[in-house]
Amino acid sequence: MSDVLLDLERSSRIGFDEAIYSAGKTPAQIETILGLAIEAGTPRLFTRLTAEKFAALRPDYSAHLDYDPHSGTAMYGRHGKEDGPIRIAIVLAGTSDTSVGGEIYRTLEYYGHESLQITDVGVAGLWRLLDRLDELRKMDVLIVAAGMEGALPSVVGGLVPGVVIAVPTSVGYGVSEGGRVALNSALASCAPGIVTVNIDNGYGAACAALRIAGVARKHRAVVV
Amino acid sequence: MSDVLLDLERSSRIGFDEAIYSAGKTPAQIETILGLAIEAGTPRLFTRLTAEKFAALRPDYSAHLDYDPHSGTAMYGRHGKEDGPIRIAIVLAGTSDTSVGGEIYRTLEYYGHESLQITDVGVAGLWRLLDRLDELRKMDVLIVAAGMEGALPSVVGGLVPGVVIAVPTSVGYGVSEGGRVALNSALASCAPGIVTVNIDNGYGAACAALRIAGVARKHRAVVV
Amino acid sequence: MSDVLLDLERSSRIGFDEAIYSAGKTPAQIETILGLAIEAGTPRLFTRLTAEKFAALRPDYSAHLDYDPHSGTAMYGRHGKEDGPIRIAIVLAGTSDTSVGGEIYRTLEYYGHESLQITDVGVAGLWRLLDRLDELRKMDVLIVAAGMEGALPSVVGGLVPGVVIAVPTSVGYGVSEGGRVALNSALASCAPGIVTVNIDNGYGAACAALRIAGVARKHRAVVV
Amino acid sequence: MSDVLLDLERSSRIGFDEAIYSAGKTPAQIETILGLAIEAGTPRLFTRLTAEKFAALRPDYSAHLDYDPHSGTAMYGRHGKEDGPIRIAIVLAGTSDTSVGGEIYRTLEYYGHESLQITDVGVAGLWRLLDRLDELRKMDVLIVAAGMEGALPSVVGGLVPGVVIAVPTSVGYGVSEGGRVALNSALASCAPGIVTVNIDNGYGAACAALRIAGVARKHRAVVV
Amino acid sequence: MSDVLLDLERSSRIGFDEAIYSAGKTPAQIETILGLAIEAGTPRLFTRLTAEKFAALRPDYSAHLDYDPHSGTAMYGRHGKEDGPIRIAIVLAGTSDTSVGGEIYRTLEYYGHESLQITDVGVAGLWRLLDRLDELRKMDVLIVAAGMEGALPSVVGGLVPGVVIAVPTSVGYGVSEGGRVALNSALASCAPGIVTVNIDNGYGAACAALRIAGVARKHRAVVV
Amino acid sequence: MSDVLLDLERSSRIGFDEAIYSAGKTPAQIETILGLAIEAGTPRLFTRLTAEKFAALRPDYSAHLDYDPHSGTAMYGRHGKEDGPIRIAIVLAGTSDTSVGGEIYRTLEYYGHESLQITDVGVAGLWRLLDRLDELRKMDVLIVAAGMEGALPSVVGGLVPGVVIAVPTSVGYGVSEGGRVALNSALASCAPGIVTVNIDNGYGAACAALRIAGVARKHRAVVV
Amino acid sequence: MSDVLLDLERSSRIGFDEAIYSAGKTPAQIETILGLAIEAGTPRLFTRLTAEKFAALRPDYSAHLDYDPHSGTAMYGRHGKEDGPIRIAIVLAGTSDTSVGGEIYRTLEYYGHESLQITDVGVAGLWRLLDRLDELRKMDVLIVAAGMEGALPSVVGGLVPGVVIAVPTSVGYGVSEGGRVALNSALASCAPGIVTVNIDNGYGAACAALRIAGVARKHRAVVV
Amino acid sequence: MSDVLLDLERSSRIGFDEAIYSAGKTPAQIETILGLAIEAGTPRLFTRLTAEKFAALRPDYSAHLDYDPHSGTAMYGRHGKEDGPIRIAIVLAGTSDTSVGGEIYRTLEYYGHESLQITDVGVAGLWRLLDRLDELRKMDVLIVAAGMEGALPSVVGGLVPGVVIAVPTSVGYGVSEGGRVALNSALASCAPGIVTVNIDNGYGAACAALRIAGVARKHRAVVV
Repeated sequence: MSDVLLDLERSSRIGFDEAIYSAGKTPAQIETILGLAIEAGTPRLFTRLTAEKFAALRPDYSAHLDYDPHSGTAMYGRHGKEDGPIRIAIVLAGTSDTSVGGEIYRTLEYYGHESLQITDVGVAGLWRLLDRLDELRKMDVLIVAAGMEGALPSVVGGLVPGVVIAVPTSVGYGVSEGGRVALNSALASCAPGIVTVNIDNGYGAACAALRIAGVARKHRAVVV
Repeated sequence: MSDVLLDLERSSRIGFDEAIYSAGKTPAQIETILGLAIEAGTPRLFTRLTAEKFAALRPDYSAHLDYDPHSGTAMYGRHGKEDGPIRIAIVLAGTSDTSVGGEIYRTLEYYGHESLQITDVGVAGLWRLLDRLDELRKMDVLIVAAGMEGALPSVVGGLVPGVVIAVPTSVGYGVSEGGRVALNSALASCAPGIVTVNIDNGYGAACAALRIAGVARKHRAVVV
Repeated sequence: MSDVLLDLERSSRIGFDEAIYSAGKTPAQIETILGLAIEAGTPRLFTRLTAEKFAALRPDYSAHLDYDPHSGTAMYGRHGKEDGPIRIAIVLAGTSDTSVGGEIYRTLEYYGHESLQITDVGVAGLWRLLDRLDELRKMDVLIVAAGMEGALPSVVGGLVPGVVIAVPTSVGYGVSEGGRVALNSALASCAPGIVTVNIDNGYGAACAALRIAGVARKHRAVVV
Repeated sequence: MSDVLLDLERSSRIGFDEAIYSAGKTPAQIETILGLAIEAGTPRLFTRLTAEKFAALRPDYSAHLDYDPHSGTAMYGRHGKEDGPIRIAIVLAGTSDTSVGGEIYRTLEYYGHESLQITDVGVAGLWRLLDRLDELRKMDVLIVAAGMEGALPSVVGGLVPGVVIAVPTSVGYGVSEGGRVALNSALASCAPGIVTVNIDNGYGAACAALRIAGVARKHRAVVV
Repeated sequence: MSDVLLDLERSSRIGFDEAIYSAGKTPAQIETILGLAIEAGTPRLFTRLTAEKFAALRPDYSAHLDYDPHSGTAMYGRHGKEDGPIRIAIVLAGTSDTSVGGEIYRTLEYYGHESLQITDVGVAGLWRLLDRLDELRKMDVLIVAAGMEGALPSVVGGLVPGVVIAVPTSVGYGVSEGGRVALNSALASCAPGIVTVNIDNGYGAACAALRIAGVARKHRAVVV
Repeated sequence: MSDVLLDLERSSRIGFDEAIYSAGKTPAQIETILGLAIEAGTPRLFTRLTAEKFAALRPDYSAHLDYDPHSGTAMYGRHGKEDGPIRIAIVLAGTSDTSVGGEIYRTLEYYGHESLQITDVGVAGLWRLLDRLDELRKMDVLIVAAGMEGALPSVVGGLVPGVVIAVPTSVGYGVSEGGRVALNSALASCAPGIVTVNIDNGYGAACAALRIAGVARKHRAVVV
Repeated sequence: MSDVLLDLERSSRIGFDEAIYSAGKTPAQIETILGLAIEAGTPRLFTRLTAEKFAALRPDYSAHLDYDPHSGTAMYGRHGKEDGPIRIAIVLAGTSDTSVGGEIYRTLEYYGHESLQITDVGVAGLWRLLDRLDELRKMDVLIVAAGMEGALPSVVGGLVPGVVIAVPTSVGYGVSEGGRVALNSALASCAPGIVTVNIDNGYGAACAALRIAGVARKHRAVVV
Repeated sequence: MSDVLLDLERSSRIGFDEAIYSAGKTPAQIETILGLAIEAGTPRLFTRLTAEKFAALRPDYSAHLDYDPHSGTAMYGRHGKEDGPIRIAIVLAGTSDTSVGGEIYRTLEYYGHESLQITDVGVAGLWRLLDRLDELRKMDVLIVAAGMEGALPSVVGGLVPGVVIAVPTSVGYGVSEGGRVALNSALASCAPGIVTVNIDNGYGAACAALRIAGVARKHRAVVV
């Protein structure tokens, strides 16, 4: 157990608690962390938990988890539903991006935020995107996930006033294998004010949305 | 003049008007664009305008510009001062990052936003940062510029609840020449919810802050 | 003169004669090649000829050249105007791409082809592109030059039935410096059937259009 | 089913319908898409469908598919045979390139085009290529697939007047593992007017040929 | 057996004997080397010995080994405990770094050195590190292992006078997959005098500590 | 002056004071920093100060500096000579590495340490190195600078018991241009316990030697 | 069978017949090629034939092959023993390089050449190499295989007059994973006149030795 | 003068004396080395000596040098003409490769070898190469320099029995800028037994030819 030292004050410092990145951890280490949460009665989110590793957990542990294999996320409990104020959209270029989309959706859900998911609006079929334009323009935060050439965040960024967070995905082959092209497209975007996170980092994009929600909530509170 | 087609509706679409990226443009093309602004009586921001190129402009054009050589920015007029609501900090790791810092500051100024600049708080001297922690924790948006190993955004991201936008800078040599290490550090950050823009892209980070300010303003307006 | 061995049968093999890539050649070598053309009375195209190198040519040589410094191209004579049949558009994302655009335009001109140039239709201002859509859809070949994130060829490729040839340009900074991002975006495009050439290779894109024109001409000839 | 939104108007926009890139999709998603095609009675092409994934489809779905494991392609129906006019060759450097060759051949077949396949004509045995030269020179489009050092497209491009589309393949090891060397060779080719697509992108090369065929057909129609 | 030629004088040349890098070796080759050690009655350390390869060893060989699967290390005997003088800390950013931490710890143990291991003090939760600061400042050598953005060695390097050896780990995904970002962060560190070893090279960092211990021991001996 | 915030407690934290990395700083910023040192009467080291920038300083400032153009270092005063205890060698592969060698030598000199410099012992002429072997084996710290293929640190590391710090240099062309090959050679070394710093980072290597000297001094002090 | 077109005149063109690179070929394709050799009664070498693929061959085919799984080579017959004249050494840095060493040895054996193999003489234990120096200096061709930092070819190249052909191997991890560091070390070598082949390309190095042997034989013949 | 330690026994070790790589050396260092040669009356070759640096030498030094600015080589004397036996060709893809070609030619000349230079035989005009085939097939060593896609060494390697040494050149732009594509093409060549040296390393290729000549001479001598 000396391997694990949770960051228990993270929530008071930055506004939301620590999620557990499961990729490099053994099942035993995950059980230890989950056990601490169960004991303390506090919720806990696990990301990048593969089906194989989930299956390797002892059943008396895994039974406590709400697990979704497509997104690789598991929740032990969740936080209370936030009272807005911001509207968040998850915009996906293609069907292949839905696992990353799931990580975004479930992370937001864990921290008490609803979101709208729009799929298959990649730039090869531009009208599918333009058909949703009115809706997109009303959003406060648009988390836009795309792989391959990653043009979607740039196109969206030129059309809406909301905050656009690109999530490059590792969908692709040849030069785009691994997601570097999509990442660099987001960084080099000719549309101003687009920000990005690491490849496939749906969790990070959701956390950025949480920070923005916190800012909006703070100013609403001040004013009311 | 057929080379230039300004995006005149950008402001209505995304909330702020088009700035002119001067790096690949000839002095004649810049004069054309500036001439259109003067004629229309609308403000215009120019970025990445080197001292050499500025000096190559005809004096009857350059006389209209508020030019700052350190940041490479020039303004023809500027937008009215925004009535808040968010507080924006520009946090710089070192003295060498001040030219990027200037691009951020001047872009925000052009669009009517004040900002607080904090310099020389790189992680090699951690106490310089911790001494300013209370101040930083009150900020809504923290634009954090760092070159070399780019650790500063990660450290800040673990300490404050505001939105942290990393601006990797090209300050460095050897492996860090050009800013890739600082960029990748921001992307790979273990602090959750940090977002990033392209290397040296102070303008883009400022625009992201504008988008966040717009969201905060919208919700304040709704509530009042 | 032993350094130079022109490929005099290229035209009979592939349909158009050899252009001279001037970048790695000395002024003396260029004079030798131009002298051969003058002597033989055959036209010759020079690409990547900088203003400095042009100025270093002896006046009795340079006087024979139609030189354009912006595109770095020089012609000694040109080929007769082709009788169609295809329509070629040069589509540029931004003003900074006009030097590459010039190389495309002048190469086509040298070989007897007209072309239509459309500038400043990058995806950050999507409506500027959509306003020209009817026109673009009538084109047989669309040579689309873009730097930065290079999203334009993908967007065009999803909207038109013509052949789309991407020319990534070296316009950009940070991750997009040198044009690799724009190149990879074209290669990884989610729009089907887009082809690409090397970064800034306007000459090559024009030559590909020549090959397509040759095919169209051949089949027209057969049918008539 | 909300994960899937087909681009039903693609054919009217660009001249051929959408193929389904199966690499990032679950068997369930593929079944959904196939089900829509069966229901509508319209043909559909699937690419990058591995034998494992094909075997994971429910038999009442997979029974409808004409599947070729070597190229990873599956067809539900196909389009009517096109009445020319262009002649297309598929030129392969080695036996190891035949899976990519199969994707090209089958894509063309699905869209109603015949093609001629020539194998094992890599530059290490140049005479094998030169023996076929007369035949190659009659072709309108030559799709040339090569891995390793990828010299074949350059050599072909210097010998024929047709349109040369390079398909770099991931055949190789050491520096050529993954196909980057073959890709860069095509891009940097000293033979003028060669165009390229992404590594192993046989589908894209075939689609480019479709676009060229459309142009040739249009001009033939105009003339007759 | 002609495949193996041990470096038997290494200890007299550099102060410690040769460890066996097992990654590229067959079980038979490992048995040969272990057999030589058993025969000679000298200890031997094996690194990067996977559980699969360990299981493939003949039981009469593997029975002689003290094997730890988490760190992939096996010892046949070990060297006598060194009488100081230096104090060595192993500082790990996260739980995922414990396998590399184990290689460091076990290598030091094999060569007779104790060490203190501190886990989960990554910069996202800076106070966990600052809480241990007094302890860290007393250490002579701090081997600091971190993956992802690898900021921890830089932060530690600015806080302590001891020798800081960074061990970048391959923990991460997207841009940080494989450990290059953590490596480059250590190299580009703004904290002066940090040194680094290869990614995941816990063994090498421990050996560097051995060299430093040797230097300290030499000067102590001279003085007494 | 708000651009500059020196780290005045660095010496008490890590044992030596802050040097000024001059590469990204303006002459005015350097004058400010030098002015503070003059005022306080404390020494200060400047690195990466080019001859051009030195010449741009106001004479009443530059007159205070001991400047060496070959290594790009300037000292305002220096620290008292340390009473040992360790012996430090600077080992250079070739004559082209002497500017980096100068930065190492002068940094050590500034902080009060002597060092022995050995030049032109690259592995192409192995006997030049072996001729000095007895001397090298007596050294406590060997800072080994090499460019091109960077084999020297590996060879030295297999021959001596001291601490070997590699300084890859940017000497080279083609694949070795910029120093990456030499850097990677040091990291991948088959000789155990070699550590490395960034390319051309002579300053950092010297600081690592200072940390080792501090450790040796501490233990000597304890014992006496 | 239309997939296979052997290069039957290669031997008359370049002096040795075509070997079959088995990596990208199906068992059926290998059986076809082997069948042609059996039918014609001519020998044939197969490289990169994994144990899995060998096992997948039909027994009536595989029975004809002399197969070595460690080097992945199979021979159907072999060429007559060459009457010298040159002496070839295979010099391996470590035990992990023996699979590449086997490919070199077996290729030379197939073409009728003997060779001397020397193992475990990597630069970390330099004396193991120097002990063999007299022997090495008598060799005409030295094929030197090394992974990791790949210093061995440079050291050998500075000690012997023979032709030194480096074979970088993919032995290593972290920065040296895949063999790029060893490759670049060979290319950037400070020892003059070293040549290199692709990573793990033992076959290619052996073929280069064949070409050199041919040259030596030719001149011997002329003189006698 | 302590900066310079020549390798005076190199000739006895490897068969030819040390050349001076001038790129990283100061004029003063070059004068020192030249002075030693003049004093000793031994010849000396200098490579990569730019016109600027040559002009910076004191006239009483430079007057002793046979300098060629196009290839950047200077000779103080030269070695006696070798009595064969091998024939060496320098084969250049284009006119832009002549500076590298000059370095090869002049290095061979310095060491007493004649060579045949063939220019402008790049693969875009294959017949220019095939026209010289009989001549090329008689050569013992073919040093083939090519930039851009670097296909020439592969094509030559499939046509001749001699030793083919590729010299990738830095001629090119976009992806081929710097010569990496040409280098990788040579390494990945499908023609067996091609070897390569670093980009633009004409000197190294010439030295490899010297080693081969030495081998051929040795065996001739033995036989006679």
